[in-house]
Amino acid sequence: AQLALERDYEAQREIDTRYRVLMEATRDAIVLVSMATGRIVDLNGAAALVLGAARGELMGAAIAQEFEGRRRGEFLESMANLAVIDSAPPVELTARRSGSRVVVVPTVFRAAGEQLLLCRLETPATRAPFQDELG
Amino acid sequence: AQLALERDYEAQREIDTRYRVLMEATRDAIVLVSMATGRIVDLNGAAALVLGAARGELMGAAIAQEFEGRRRGEFLESMANLAVIDSAPPVELTARRSGSRVVVVPTVFRAAGEQLLLCRLETPATRAPFQDELG
Repeated sequence: AQLALERDYEAQREIDTRYRVLMEATRDAIVLVSMATGRIVDLNGAAALVLGAARGELMGAAIAQEFEGRRRGEFLESMANLAVIDSAPPVELTARRSGSRVVVVPTVFRAAGEQLLLCRLETPATRAPFQDELG
Repeated sequence: AQLALERDYEAQREIDTRYRVLMEATRDAIVLVSMATGRIVDLNGAAALVLGAARGELMGAAIAQEFEGRRRGEFLESMANLAVIDSAPPVELTARRSGSRVVVVPTVFRAAGEQLLLCRLETPATRAPFQDELG
């Protein structure tokens, strides 16, 4: 049983490492938000760049306050609605700190009983070529 | 102790879910390869598209054979060398099944005692804009 536990622990650490390496290897700006609190639970370096602050400063911050003119409830509700509608129009917002125009592409999912929101933050420069290629 | 174990299990499932959602949410084509066997241990839909086969068909396949003119040892060695050199030139290869020209950007990491290789597969159309923006 001890050995089985150790194997579980190793497997857990492996996925954890894969997740972290993947977050930094992707060129997409990625933010994970708790739907319960509206706060950022993780983000990668590309997302910190788009939002205009250090990663450490953004961890735990309320996501709605990172965009201009968005209140918390309204922001989370619109993201949750978008995420379940396949053909919903993308939401274009302005990042408060950097002034960048950002298209937010949301995915809502449930993990360990908690609802999480993954947002891909697309800027005009990174948006077009992927659409051309992948439809 | 039972409760602690259950919490560990939940935490593990949560990271696992995050990893899977992230793999599909990123627009980058991502392939994970075991350095011990040279075989694909995971890939996302975008990578399957670039390599030109169904995801299920590519899982477990030898990565070197997915590119033209590359033998297994040579491929893994060149990826491992690239991954530790910051300013190494990117390796441009041709995907055997799709005929696509692909620039392979490797990251080597250790997880649970095993060496893994994460490859970001960039095609010419998706490569330039990110470079312009993020340097």
